[in-house]
Amino acid sequence: MTTSGSVTDGGEVGDDGPQSSTRRSHRVTISDLAQRLHISKASVSYALNGRAGVSEETRQRVLDLAEELGFHPNSAAVALSASRTRTIGIVIARDPALISTEAFYMRTLVGIEQYLNEVDSSLLLRLTGEHGEDLDVLRRWSRQGRVDGFILFDEHDDDPRIPLLTELGVPCVVVSSNAPDDSVGRLISSPEETVGLLLDHLVELGHRNIAHISGPFTFVHERLRVQVLQEQAERRGVAVRQIEGSYRYDDGAELTRQLLTDPDPPTAIVLGNDLMAVAALRVAMDLGTAVPAEVSILAWDDSPLCELARPGITAVNQKTMERGRAAADLLLRIVTGENEMHEQAPAGELQARDSSGPAPF
Amino acid sequence: MTTSGSVTDGGEVGDDGPQSSTRRSHRVTISDLAQRLHISKASVSYALNGRAGVSEETRQRVLDLAEELGFHPNSAAVALSASRTRTIGIVIARDPALISTEAFYMRTLVGIEQYLNEVDSSLLLRLTGEHGEDLDVLRRWSRQGRVDGFILFDEHDDDPRIPLLTELGVPCVVVSSNAPDDSVGRLISSPEETVGLLLDHLVELGHRNIAHISGPFTFVHERLRVQVLQEQAERRGVAVRQIEGSYRYDDGAELTRQLLTDPDPPTAIVLGNDLMAVAALRVAMDLGTAVPAEVSILAWDDSPLCELARPGITAVNQKTMERGRAAADLLLRIVTGENEMHEQAPAGELQARDSSGPAPF
Repeated sequence: MTTSGSVTDGGEVGDDGPQSSTRRSHRVTISDLAQRLHISKASVSYALNGRAGVSEETRQRVLDLAEELGFHPNSAAVALSASRTRTIGIVIARDPALISTEAFYMRTLVGIEQYLNEVDSSLLLRLTGEHGEDLDVLRRWSRQGRVDGFILFDEHDDDPRIPLLTELGVPCVVVSSNAPDDSVGRLISSPEETVGLLLDHLVELGHRNIAHISGPFTFVHERLRVQVLQEQAERRGVAVRQIEGSYRYDDGAELTRQLLTDPDPPTAIVLGNDLMAVAALRVAMDLGTAVPAEVSILAWDDSPLCELARPGITAVNQKTMERGRAAADLLLRIVTGENEMHEQAPAGELQARDSSGPAPF
Repeated sequence: MTTSGSVTDGGEVGDDGPQSSTRRSHRVTISDLAQRLHISKASVSYALNGRAGVSEETRQRVLDLAEELGFHPNSAAVALSASRTRTIGIVIARDPALISTEAFYMRTLVGIEQYLNEVDSSLLLRLTGEHGEDLDVLRRWSRQGRVDGFILFDEHDDDPRIPLLTELGVPCVVVSSNAPDDSVGRLISSPEETVGLLLDHLVELGHRNIAHISGPFTFVHERLRVQVLQEQAERRGVAVRQIEGSYRYDDGAELTRQLLTDPDPPTAIVLGNDLMAVAALRVAMDLGTAVPAEVSILAWDDSPLCELARPGITAVNQKTMERGRAAADLLLRIVTGENEMHEQAPAGELQARDSSGPAPF
């Protein structure tokens, strides 16, 4: 096999692993019981749930240790022992070749997998390309009872997946930017917070002339970002130019070039993803525009690319792995029959780096 | 949801998407038939395999179009229509927080998924951390008949997964660096080729004093790389210092610092992954050592980080996505009963960039 890289223990590369590790270390899990007793997690689960498959002696040892360590089975673990499949489904309808360079998906999947592993459950995954084949797969897996529910990404307008799953009666959680009045599970990360973090940072540094190169407006969350950014900018009395981008490197480069060669260039540019932000950095360098002395460059969400760029790119750590965990947790609670369908995603944090600085005079 | 980035159509960021797209466009697939006829892939598959579930009229339309377009069901599709689960399993036993920054896994998974989607099959995925829980999962999924076979990564010495799956009688393909005399499926990417590409490039540029900072020797493939590099360097009459690294950024930085401040510094450093190569670039910059005028920096495998670094880092495009596809294809052929268990992975290609140049005098 080929090489695969790792980050440092100290969190040299920006991800949200350390937080989740800390969080994990404070809760006794089925894994902990299994390791201490040198038995499988399945055996621990059988013992705790009073099911066949372990000896009475083992069951007693498990129950004793659980009491000693203060172990409380979480709701998801209970849900799963009640579920049929111990499996959740994810179907992503995007060009697989493009997904492979997107840190977002891998970090989210890893967060989901971390959580599922703690409750001894699995992920059934399909990447279908962009041709509506995802609906076929959702329908088939549902009818075949292969999964207990789905996590959905990339919500579009009038997204056909939601009525389909509602009709089939299969639980789902949409990783979502807003909370419409529906009965579908939603892990909501509304853009208010991220916009607030970015604008507070820029306004504090004296910026009044800001540009935002977004992702494509076909995504609900991108249009929401634009709207919220406009509202908050007006409230703060700063101007924001909104430009629709595509998430692509070339596009980020070209749109930045247009902005920086404008007679009235912005003093700060916020870009919808890391790739476009790296492109913006390069274009500024090519044009001889100093970063951050003449223009500040910011990215909507943090990634190793933002951290490893020089100068490092200021970005919002969206806690992607934590969000994956939270989405899986919400889905499993809905599978158990919990009625609370909407939940706020963990809050993001501004990661200030050298690409942002005081506005030029 | 948060932003997710995409690369340009023109392949601005190094991955092996374009190659696979090209390859795909030359073969008629079940997807093509389904799209042309506006029916599901499942229906096409039923029609081709003479199974119930489609009308006679549809079956005839499928067969006619298949003949017109010269469609030949590939062996994997045949395998899967014979299989029980239409699902393969992957269980990765590494710290999930570290996996999330590794482009290797995502690219490989995407290649596998691309292939599986073409034959209308799925992936059951579990990330278990590093505590041997992976054996539990392999055992359980096998006994429960949840998958038709497994793809295994990260082979260690005396890897217990291989005798386990052999005993359970479940097919597997090891994504592998060598071909031991065993009856387990192996997609072999031996390091000879990559070492040849890297050394030819360096020797041509006049380098005679080379260092190699590898990944950890606990991985079979890393020890093999060191051995092959030593052999080929001796044959070419050049010296190679071998240093064991960890794939981590900090470690790559520290080991590079030691090399560059040595009284006899190497004129070229090959690093075992992209993260260490970026670290090496930074350290050279910090020390005022010009890249490539005073030292050339190369990475074992290409990635967006290598492409987006400045200077861009010379690396070998290991065709990771193609390898994922090839591994899935081999596994499905073994599931059908094919006897040829070992296969060479697609060849890599040197991606020369600005981080390598003529050796200084």
